[in-house]
Amino acid sequence: MNFRFVINQLGLLLIVLSAILGGVALWEIYEYWQGAHLELVSMEAMIASAGVGLCAGGGMWYLGRGAATKIGRREALLLVALSWLVGAALSGLPYFLWAVIHHSTAPTPIVETGGPAHPFLNYVDCYFEAMSGLTTTGATVLSEIESLPRGLLLWRAITHWLGGLGIVVLFVAVLPTVGAGGKKLFLIEAPGPTPTGVKPRIKDTARILWFIYVGLTIAQTVALRLCGMSWFDALCHTMATLATGGFSTRNASVGDYNLASVIVIIFFMVLAGANFGLYYQIIRGSWRNVLADTEMRAYLLLLTAGSLIVVASLVAAQQPLPLTTGDQHEPSIARALEQGVFTTVSIQTTTGFCTGDFNTWPFLAQATLIGLMFIGGCAGSTAGGIKVVRIWVAIKIIYTELERVFNPNVVRPTRLGGSGSIKDDLKLSVMIYCFGIILLFAIGAVAIKVIEGDACDFTTAATASVATLCTIGPGLSQIGAIENYGWMTSSSKVVLSLWMALGRLEVFAILVLLLPRFWRTE
Amino acid sequence: MNFRFVINQLGLLLIVLSAILGGVALWEIYEYWQGAHLELVSMEAMIASAGVGLCAGGGMWYLGRGAATKIGRREALLLVALSWLVGAALSGLPYFLWAVIHHSTAPTPIVETGGPAHPFLNYVDCYFEAMSGLTTTGATVLSEIESLPRGLLLWRAITHWLGGLGIVVLFVAVLPTVGAGGKKLFLIEAPGPTPTGVKPRIKDTARILWFIYVGLTIAQTVALRLCGMSWFDALCHTMATLATGGFSTRNASVGDYNLASVIVIIFFMVLAGANFGLYYQIIRGSWRNVLADTEMRAYLLLLTAGSLIVVASLVAAQQPLPLTTGDQHEPSIARALEQGVFTTVSIQTTTGFCTGDFNTWPFLAQATLIGLMFIGGCAGSTAGGIKVVRIWVAIKIIYTELERVFNPNVVRPTRLGGSGSIKDDLKLSVMIYCFGIILLFAIGAVAIKVIEGDACDFTTAATASVATLCTIGPGLSQIGAIENYGWMTSSSKVVLSLWMALGRLEVFAILVLLLPRFWRTE
Repeated sequence: MNFRFVINQLGLLLIVLSAILGGVALWEIYEYWQGAHLELVSMEAMIASAGVGLCAGGGMWYLGRGAATKIGRREALLLVALSWLVGAALSGLPYFLWAVIHHSTAPTPIVETGGPAHPFLNYVDCYFEAMSGLTTTGATVLSEIESLPRGLLLWRAITHWLGGLGIVVLFVAVLPTVGAGGKKLFLIEAPGPTPTGVKPRIKDTARILWFIYVGLTIAQTVALRLCGMSWFDALCHTMATLATGGFSTRNASVGDYNLASVIVIIFFMVLAGANFGLYYQIIRGSWRNVLADTEMRAYLLLLTAGSLIVVASLVAAQQPLPLTTGDQHEPSIARALEQGVFTTVSIQTTTGFCTGDFNTWPFLAQATLIGLMFIGGCAGSTAGGIKVVRIWVAIKIIYTELERVFNPNVVRPTRLGGSGSIKDDLKLSVMIYCFGIILLFAIGAVAIKVIEGDACDFTTAATASVATLCTIGPGLSQIGAIENYGWMTSSSKVVLSLWMALGRLEVFAILVLLLPRFWRTE
Repeated sequence: MNFRFVINQLGLLLIVLSAILGGVALWEIYEYWQGAHLELVSMEAMIASAGVGLCAGGGMWYLGRGAATKIGRREALLLVALSWLVGAALSGLPYFLWAVIHHSTAPTPIVETGGPAHPFLNYVDCYFEAMSGLTTTGATVLSEIESLPRGLLLWRAITHWLGGLGIVVLFVAVLPTVGAGGKKLFLIEAPGPTPTGVKPRIKDTARILWFIYVGLTIAQTVALRLCGMSWFDALCHTMATLATGGFSTRNASVGDYNLASVIVIIFFMVLAGANFGLYYQIIRGSWRNVLADTEMRAYLLLLTAGSLIVVASLVAAQQPLPLTTGDQHEPSIARALEQGVFTTVSIQTTTGFCTGDFNTWPFLAQATLIGLMFIGGCAGSTAGGIKVVRIWVAIKIIYTELERVFNPNVVRPTRLGGSGSIKDDLKLSVMIYCFGIILLFAIGAVAIKVIEGDACDFTTAATASVATLCTIGPGLSQIGAIENYGWMTSSSKVVLSLWMALGRLEVFAILVLLLPRFWRTE
């Protein structure tokens, strides 16, 4: 195992994160210069975190300098897993330092509504919040978001944006193209179709993906500004949308904004949940491939069907529709459409923005949302979940298996769009992945319920497990649209942080670290 | 499709069932002759049902006489599916006729505690009860069991016994040996190890299995009689135990009997949940194979580990342990051991007998029981569930897949005991089966909750789905150990009846009937 290279690269990652933290501090000074109130404590926390990150990262980089750059699959896996696990440790530091400095210097200690102390005074909560950001989950420990300084709010959004970009580049550009090892790695980590049309060289592809991501960011920010949001809110919500994250700058999430903003966000959530490899193809002029893409079609079909079921069950229930703002809408088809479509898209793309409090919705609507949580978005997107393409392949496999029961000699190759037939070991991988997610979901649900005991009902524990594993954010009951994860014990937050990383890195990259054989030098 | 042969064979099945119904009527006359009170209405219902069955069965047999006896996989699958679906229709008739005759002739209409009318006045309830018997599930619509005439109680137990024998003969003797078609069929329906050592000729194997089954029945009946049960109760509980059914003759299930009876029933439940092919081997003198059997070892390990977790969590909770009789035990290690071990064995073997009301047990104990419900007993037993061998293979497959992530060139054949390595298509079948059961469980849970609406909580709906699909019987909440299924709507009972048949016949035999291609003549 080439540990030196791994440490060297991790050091680089910490240095980059520190530079961005420094950038946020600079922006706070710029805001002050523009006449805004200076959030001194927040700026201090940012600078201190950047300093810590620079020292740690620089030291690691120095320790690992000159390492052989030829790495195998083990090093790649370890680096990917540690990038998120260690990255979250640094990303959570500004939250923690802000709370600690504030607590020790302010005349009155900071408290949150209903809590004896601010959650960020506990580093585990900060780690949870940072992991939730980097994994683009959007689960928060905060009940009172608007009282955070703008610097921290921006940093929360930036963690989403970075995490989303990292995942797209990793799954579309890096893994399928780093030679034989990486190609196979990609097949296991994202056994969808090998993204067609991505260029064979990593750097080129990564650069184009970066352009697409930045382009979409600019487009949505401007669109939201035109809808009436402030530049700050527009940028933060854009970063959370494109990463399918879900952190908002408001307590009421997107419920605070007008219908135009809601529609813009729906549009960009749908884009963010689709395969970024397709946008690469559009840039290269092949629109036709995009329209013919099986997964894209299935994805849009699922979004439509899911929305229809949710809206229909809301209309049928004829009950008031509570909003995240505390108000409620009287039952009407227009309101059901507005809340139903937004929530369905937000849930299936694993974003987790909320306008309505779906805790009070009819069972069928909730069951549909939970089902869509498991399915998630497309492979090669920033969304989590099992992924549409795997579900599609699994359905085809099951159908073929059923037919083989009465007609064992039938040979019906499982195809995906126009590509060749799917090989047996890839089929097995898909089924293992589907079963594995459900198994991890069950383990997580039981673990949270056992840890929390009577403090939490089983619905809460179960939806917390799926909402983190599939990187959605909000669940039902005590972690519903207007609730948060702050009340949970630190043990639960550690488990759920791990669950977010597991789900984000498609399970295997984290689980292999538990095998003794992984660490054995051969 | 050779429909005539299928109809002919179904006719034979109905004739056999009618003969047994007639036998029960004769037994009632014998009881009267011995000085017991004559249950006239019950006897009339038995004879009338036997008459209906004889006419229908005779007619079908006559219609299909002289059909070609050479059948393919389609005919075999259709026959297996219809045996249970049509068999339950006749088996439910005595319940229905008894209630109708009683209702129209008795001076006061029969009512059940808490109900406006006896559930058996609704034929759907009778079908549910009969399907529950034949599939060895043991879910009942009755809240008041002891007021049933002894003839009907005996018939309920007999349906268990027949269903259990049918499944064992089908999966151990018939399917693996009816030529190439059947062998493959077995591989799909029960992708465990091909039971080693079963003789190649169906009739011989079936006869030996029949002897084993009858031998065990006699042994357990005598053992229970020695423990103090009446011959009648001993026989009924024996039939329910060996079929891993769960129908009792008492409202309090096994809670009414002494510790010695409880221990005897535990012992025979463990035997009933193991592969009957192994008993065949014991008769042929090869003890060693039995002890070396991987599935048997895993099964005993699971029973032990499950019991330990349940007992430990009961001891730790230090709360009173309510009994099915309405009393409760004070918390003590001995009582926790008594109730915990019995319940764990009863649940994992998918029997469903109860002594304690586990609705009030701590979450960890309940979660363990639900997990064991999904796993179930061994392949080739009368138990339901995914089966221990499939779980074992699935774990091995997942472990190998994990290792392939960082070491793609590893070739580690998945073996089961001393047999050869498991082929890829069989691995795929196992994963599909595991995933399929969980999918059906989820669909069933949502369906029941949607049908019942506010009349039922989600725990009830979810455990009803798994308790029928895995042929256990009792679940949690409103269908807990001291509850029943009588309060559900007829629609739910139809769904759950189908779920019992699906689970019992290992899913595929029923699901293929839904494919249009299955019915197409080629």
